[in-house]
Amino acid sequence: MSSDTLSNGHQTSPPTSDRETESAESSKATVKKKKSSKKGYRHHITPIHTTVAPSVLSKDAPPASYRGFMNLAMLILAASNVRLIIENYLKYGFLMSRPGTFVPPSDYILFSTTFIALPFNVIFAYLIEKMAIKPFLAELKRAKAQDQQPTLTPKILSINRRAGILHVINITITILYPTLMSYYAIFHPFLATVVLFVAVMLFLKLVSYSLVNRDLRLNQVSSQDKNLEGFYTVAYPNNITLGDIVYFWFAPTLCYQPSYPRAPQKFRLGFFLKRAGELLIACTMMYFLIEQYANPTLKNSVRAMDELALVNIVERLLKLSTTSLLIWLLMFYAFFHCYMNVLSEALEFGDRTFYLDWWNSGSLETYWRLWNRPVYHWFKRHVYLPLVGQGVPPIVATLTVFTISAALHELMVGVPTHAIMGYAFGGMMAQIPLITLSKPLEKWRGKGSTLGNVLFWVSFCLVGQPACVLLYYYQWVITHRVEPV
Amino acid sequence: MSSDTLSNGHQTSPPTSDRETESAESSKATVKKKKSSKKGYRHHITPIHTTVAPSVLSKDAPPASYRGFMNLAMLILAASNVRLIIENYLKYGFLMSRPGTFVPPSDYILFSTTFIALPFNVIFAYLIEKMAIKPFLAELKRAKAQDQQPTLTPKILSINRRAGILHVINITITILYPTLMSYYAIFHPFLATVVLFVAVMLFLKLVSYSLVNRDLRLNQVSSQDKNLEGFYTVAYPNNITLGDIVYFWFAPTLCYQPSYPRAPQKFRLGFFLKRAGELLIACTMMYFLIEQYANPTLKNSVRAMDELALVNIVERLLKLSTTSLLIWLLMFYAFFHCYMNVLSEALEFGDRTFYLDWWNSGSLETYWRLWNRPVYHWFKRHVYLPLVGQGVPPIVATLTVFTISAALHELMVGVPTHAIMGYAFGGMMAQIPLITLSKPLEKWRGKGSTLGNVLFWVSFCLVGQPACVLLYYYQWVITHRVEPV
Repeated sequence: MSSDTLSNGHQTSPPTSDRETESAESSKATVKKKKSSKKGYRHHITPIHTTVAPSVLSKDAPPASYRGFMNLAMLILAASNVRLIIENYLKYGFLMSRPGTFVPPSDYILFSTTFIALPFNVIFAYLIEKMAIKPFLAELKRAKAQDQQPTLTPKILSINRRAGILHVINITITILYPTLMSYYAIFHPFLATVVLFVAVMLFLKLVSYSLVNRDLRLNQVSSQDKNLEGFYTVAYPNNITLGDIVYFWFAPTLCYQPSYPRAPQKFRLGFFLKRAGELLIACTMMYFLIEQYANPTLKNSVRAMDELALVNIVERLLKLSTTSLLIWLLMFYAFFHCYMNVLSEALEFGDRTFYLDWWNSGSLETYWRLWNRPVYHWFKRHVYLPLVGQGVPPIVATLTVFTISAALHELMVGVPTHAIMGYAFGGMMAQIPLITLSKPLEKWRGKGSTLGNVLFWVSFCLVGQPACVLLYYYQWVITHRVEPV
Repeated sequence: MSSDTLSNGHQTSPPTSDRETESAESSKATVKKKKSSKKGYRHHITPIHTTVAPSVLSKDAPPASYRGFMNLAMLILAASNVRLIIENYLKYGFLMSRPGTFVPPSDYILFSTTFIALPFNVIFAYLIEKMAIKPFLAELKRAKAQDQQPTLTPKILSINRRAGILHVINITITILYPTLMSYYAIFHPFLATVVLFVAVMLFLKLVSYSLVNRDLRLNQVSSQDKNLEGFYTVAYPNNITLGDIVYFWFAPTLCYQPSYPRAPQKFRLGFFLKRAGELLIACTMMYFLIEQYANPTLKNSVRAMDELALVNIVERLLKLSTTSLLIWLLMFYAFFHCYMNVLSEALEFGDRTFYLDWWNSGSLETYWRLWNRPVYHWFKRHVYLPLVGQGVPPIVATLTVFTISAALHELMVGVPTHAIMGYAFGGMMAQIPLITLSKPLEKWRGKGSTLGNVLFWVSFCLVGQPACVLLYYYQWVITHRVEPV
């Protein structure tokens, strides 16, 4: 209680020198008068309760700010997590071991051999396109010589068909070989996941590469859409080079284009190093979180799963959810922000909207549209639009997209853990009814409402993800019944 | 991915029929044209990456909303507390016993006898004032008969002195008897706390009653301040009635006034019952939180305190802090909002600003000024202003207020736990340097800044309160070395 705040109260006391202040005295004299009137016993009779007023929390009081309680909530969140960190330390000490302790040496050889296969798939894809150019160029030459419009000659159609068959074989090998290796040969789920992840990316890229080049060829011959040339700085078939396909392989996109918008500025070393540093830090933190927090929680949940003790399972799920959420947020930041920006900076790739503000999503539907733009674009361009273009009802096209996506999710989770149980597939498909259910909510509260956002976080991060992690972990344990990795 | 959102993308594709749309065709025809152009292979060559744009989280991107992360934080807070509730249930089951199980029967008798003494203190205070009126009325009568101004006769001064001495004796008994009973006779800290709490309130009220009436008497005789009469609807000595002092005893204020602003509306039964119901619920919740959460945490902290294991003590403090904070917030709501409003409604007491929005406090100083208005007013009116009025420097007056307040805190905590260890006194006094330290912060960030608010919550609720609770509990345990209550 400082002097100024306390003496404020004195001014609410009855004016003792009304007449004096009314006469034009200097303010200094008034102050003196007030000071002298403070002497003696005047203070105790000063009225304290002078007005009628409701309590701040009453309904009839003017609305108050509750900002402080928000700060308090954030503080409790921080404090309770600090406590959990201490509790974990007291219980387990420092758990993190050197990475790769549990990886069998043979895994590294299998891992490398699987990786070495991928560049060959890229080269084959290039060679197939290179082959397909020849009759096309011949036809262009012929048409030009005879001053005619080029047409789809039987030769072009037949080479197109042959190129298509070869692409299908090549793309099948791209995905099949790493899948078989991951499922049957590589023991450690992490290495297998990395292999499959890279393979699936290349698979999607090669599908896009073959479809786009086929259509560019057909488009040029039938001259259906000359306007396209304004968009791409490289005209078909000048894009069919080894350099171009290698650029596409590494570029942070799954959609092939003969050319991409380039970054307006030259390579920024500072930006590159910052993102690379963040990537390193995020990966270390993820590793630490997995070893120190997720692993013990998962180990301690096996018994509850064995006994199907529901309350205990819910407790474990909630304990896991904070850790899995943090890991997932770090993964998002590391991959979609750091890694993709690092790549973009190195490749001077211009369009860096790898994600939009999905964290404000009011529904799962919005989330899937915003969080992973490369995959979203790929499905839109190569699955959804062609299907709708061929007269398939939009709802069926959407279901097709979700089913393929669910299959890919199952592939990337079930195969590395050697447990194709369909939990990931089911988790994806279960979102279709959830999205349908959230439609009335969006109508009621509007898009991106707080309620919708909370329901999104609950269904996706607090229940869905930890439940899937727990299920696959448990599957792994009951299959191996060993000290799990 | 809904049909409308996906097909949006198609509109970003190059316009295929520029000339047609330029000619004034009907929009329906345009749609048809577009639909037909969707057929076939046009989709795969639609450009996806058409612009240069930074990632949302990049510095060079336009500022994005992070509202969703705030929702997520609140959600994690809720989820982690639900988990702690489940964990507590799995560990301890349902702990809450019938209230009063650990209270020795003799305590109830001691409790009641201490309570019975208090009305006599009230009656004595009234009788002392009644006695002091007589020479005062005689002087008024004499002055009126002789048409003179009343003056301070020796008789008035002597009766004033005598009344003062009697008041000191009566007020000393008011506080001393319950203190001795609580410290030496009543075993259970809860009952002792209730006794002391009621006694301290009456102590403060009787101090105010005696000082105000003395000054009103002197004021009337010396006619120093006739303006006061406009504030009080009852003029001295008409306020000296038994009904008046009993009203003041129960009124939700510690500052005596001959009259108070009355509530503008008549007794509202609905308001009364709602607040009374909330009071009951809040008290039950507090009891539950103490038995189910605070008690086990405290019990489990004894070993850490015995061994002075610092990390474990910090962990226990943090575990305790959420519970103690909740109990304290409930206590605030129950006492300052529910109880005082219930009283006010019954007594038609008008000024219900028992607290202001202390939760937004930017410093401890602001907090003490806002959270407990009755005590704040009492100290301002009966300690701070008289001291400053007598020429004491404001800083010394402030220190005096803090010291008296610290002594009362120690009395209300140390005595019922039979452990006058000075922790509560020290906790209060330690705030003086904290407030001094926060002055530069207020200058830097302004009053009520978020940083100041966070520091207030940390120092007061996350560290100060649980630390005091732990210290007094531990003191209780090492004194008794029994299963604590």
